[in-house]
Amino acid sequence: MDKQIVADMLSKFPDLIDATPATISAHCKGWRGETGDALFVARPRTTSDVSALVRSSLRNGIHLVPQSGKTGLVGASVPDARPRQAILNLERLNTEFQVDRTNRTIQCSAGLKLSEINDKLAEHNLCLPIDLGADPCIGGMIATNTGGSRLLRYGDVRRHVLALTVVLGDADGSIIELGAPLRKNATGPDWKQLFIGTGAAFGIVTACTLSVERVPQHRAAALVSLPDAEALSDLLCELEDRFGSLVSAVEFMSANAMAAAHAAFGALKKPFGESFPEIAVLVELSCDWPLSDQDRSLDDILLEGLVSLWEKSDGRLGHAVFGRVEEMWAIRHAISEGVRKRGRLYAFDLSFRRGDVLAFRTDMKLQLSEQYPNISVCDFGHVGDGGLHFNLVDNIADKDWTPCRERNIRDLVISQTVEVYGGSFSAEHGIGPINFRYFDTYTSDKERELARIMESATSNKSFGRVHYS
Amino acid sequence: MDKQIVADMLSKFPDLIDATPATISAHCKGWRGETGDALFVARPRTTSDVSALVRSSLRNGIHLVPQSGKTGLVGASVPDARPRQAILNLERLNTEFQVDRTNRTIQCSAGLKLSEINDKLAEHNLCLPIDLGADPCIGGMIATNTGGSRLLRYGDVRRHVLALTVVLGDADGSIIELGAPLRKNATGPDWKQLFIGTGAAFGIVTACTLSVERVPQHRAAALVSLPDAEALSDLLCELEDRFGSLVSAVEFMSANAMAAAHAAFGALKKPFGESFPEIAVLVELSCDWPLSDQDRSLDDILLEGLVSLWEKSDGRLGHAVFGRVEEMWAIRHAISEGVRKRGRLYAFDLSFRRGDVLAFRTDMKLQLSEQYPNISVCDFGHVGDGGLHFNLVDNIADKDWTPCRERNIRDLVISQTVEVYGGSFSAEHGIGPINFRYFDTYTSDKERELARIMESATSNKSFGRVHYS
Repeated sequence: MDKQIVADMLSKFPDLIDATPATISAHCKGWRGETGDALFVARPRTTSDVSALVRSSLRNGIHLVPQSGKTGLVGASVPDARPRQAILNLERLNTEFQVDRTNRTIQCSAGLKLSEINDKLAEHNLCLPIDLGADPCIGGMIATNTGGSRLLRYGDVRRHVLALTVVLGDADGSIIELGAPLRKNATGPDWKQLFIGTGAAFGIVTACTLSVERVPQHRAAALVSLPDAEALSDLLCELEDRFGSLVSAVEFMSANAMAAAHAAFGALKKPFGESFPEIAVLVELSCDWPLSDQDRSLDDILLEGLVSLWEKSDGRLGHAVFGRVEEMWAIRHAISEGVRKRGRLYAFDLSFRRGDVLAFRTDMKLQLSEQYPNISVCDFGHVGDGGLHFNLVDNIADKDWTPCRERNIRDLVISQTVEVYGGSFSAEHGIGPINFRYFDTYTSDKERELARIMESATSNKSFGRVHYS
Repeated sequence: MDKQIVADMLSKFPDLIDATPATISAHCKGWRGETGDALFVARPRTTSDVSALVRSSLRNGIHLVPQSGKTGLVGASVPDARPRQAILNLERLNTEFQVDRTNRTIQCSAGLKLSEINDKLAEHNLCLPIDLGADPCIGGMIATNTGGSRLLRYGDVRRHVLALTVVLGDADGSIIELGAPLRKNATGPDWKQLFIGTGAAFGIVTACTLSVERVPQHRAAALVSLPDAEALSDLLCELEDRFGSLVSAVEFMSANAMAAAHAAFGALKKPFGESFPEIAVLVELSCDWPLSDQDRSLDDILLEGLVSLWEKSDGRLGHAVFGRVEEMWAIRHAISEGVRKRGRLYAFDLSFRRGDVLAFRTDMKLQLSEQYPNISVCDFGHVGDGGLHFNLVDNIADKDWTPCRERNIRDLVISQTVEVYGGSFSAEHGIGPINFRYFDTYTSDKERELARIMESATSNKSFGRVHYS
């Protein structure tokens, strides 16, 4: 029967559907290595294509898994092993792109990549300032509400979304337009918010209108080593007092994380010489207007501000090294890859109140060292916004590893995060099969009831890997 | 029977309910003069009080009208003439206020006034940067998602809300907590968004956690006169190119609006001498970090930037006058009051793509002058974010005025706004009896269906003046 369904869909959408095994398997593998199976891969070019594919799929009892740039880290963009799933890959939905220079907005299709959007915006001196390691499509970014390294300055994807085109999973594959290219619009419930950060549970975003920002004209960065975790809260407040919204990133890197980056990439600079401080913080200032010859450079502003800060703190806030912005960020950006090469990795994407990030870390490191001496903590994160990628490398021998061990460790970290510190178990990666267990544990009945109601109103669980009810 | 209900409620909540005629009538009159009737005024002190009042009111068939600072401009905070309404005034819900300095957040009760919040924040060098003419309570600001004059820099109320405590209108008066004091949190649908900008249709906000900002340390302002409407788009782009996110406000004032302000307040400065340019724009720069002696002042940055802009534009972008920031804003802030004194006022709170604001204005002025020669356009607004308070003074004799005339004029302006320019008929004032007619006209069936579903899931139309289904 599945063969007949595939044949039907192929004959109906010969240009949009590919059911060759090579194509299917290429689209069934996720970033974290998770795999599944699909009847076919559909690659719509327009919103109408999406709507038609949804209608036919529903009639044929096919469960569609929308797939964007396949850079998601929670397994939500690939099918699992259940029968009669198909992939709705949105990457060919990339033809529309319009800039409204005066309004400082763009209107574009969901399949455009972040890098493509920023390349197109560069000639206007504009950018979409979501700073990520990966290069996802904007549709997936909206579905995940991605954060990134400069959230402190620019906010999340949600902040930039003014309007969405959405295809619902009802019998008609209804196409709805939510919002408008307006910065002020208080005409009732802002329904588009429900389609941001919710996978495709309520519908598939096919196009969007976004508010964009000016390209930064100047940047300066320093690496600050801190003597202890307590100093971070003071440093954050002092940085914002001195530099205000010039601060565009405050990134934490542990000694283990920096060592892993350097071990993997020999050409990286060694700003602290051969050793690494236990707690290093990358501080970036930037401004989106051109400084004149009469203005102090951001380098000078940062240097002078930090020097006065050291004097005031009498060394309690550590010391700083200065260097080229790109070289500092190169270390930071090398960490993910470096840590992956260290061995078996348990990655966590946590967030806290800013004052709790390093308190949690100190606490957790102690507990882990007592209970799991083979675990090495290689953490880093966006402390300026409370984010922490609390990554653990498990140095246990393969023969001694069990799924139960991994689960116990994950449960310990997450329960400490949520129950003790009131933090989030998914700061910016969203919800998917990889963390659904914790969504189940920590979501209230009322929220699940609202989700159930909204899912039946929009998509009847027709889409994707994630359901919130 | 109403008397019995009031007696019951009074005996149950002797400290929370006041049914004296003076109190009731004082709370039944809205900002625009609208009036209604209520059985009593309930004034809860805690979230539990609200929940208890909701439960008892529902059981008694009383429809509660939540009321905050009573500064709303669309009539949503006072009851109308229908029977068995009661006012739930939230101003005594003002005891909780906590600052988390490191997290740069506050947690507070819904009844605190904007000015109270900013007074309390001042000692921490922080502020809630929503810049309004009125002094509403934060609960009402969330219910309306207010904007204000500095939205261009700081965004709307929504951008600042991290968490809400909400009392639903179900039989239990359920208290739910949505969100957390976290800047990054991607753990499913962000339900709190549905309680922002939706009156109390889905529930009553009793407390909130907000992200706050640093207090600006320096400001500079200039008034620019523009020779024609087309110049505004160029000016906006040029200002952002030159000054980037130093720009904190770009406010438009028409000659009629400025003249009205000056007629009402004789002490105001006259930056352009005895005449007023048809199109004047107040440009403000500000920064939230302290400048040093070595830095150019914002006054110098603004002056030099504007001079180079005039040279480049060869006068096409008009000319500027400089002065004290407070004196410039005094003119702008005097407009609302000044225009009200001019006579019969039809106020509009519109928004557009930024490039369309003055195009709409030119177009509309022409149409009005042809069809309604007695109308004088006294408009002003936040052109930096696309907002326009398109206020009309009708100089027709009282005896010739009819409701039909007013409605026709309103319909003309709104239809032009929405249908021709794709703008919003309520940029920042929200939805209420005063503009419900246009909500009815311009809201899609699908959005109303979603609202109907959400209302039955949360409040069953138990609250307030506004329902979106």
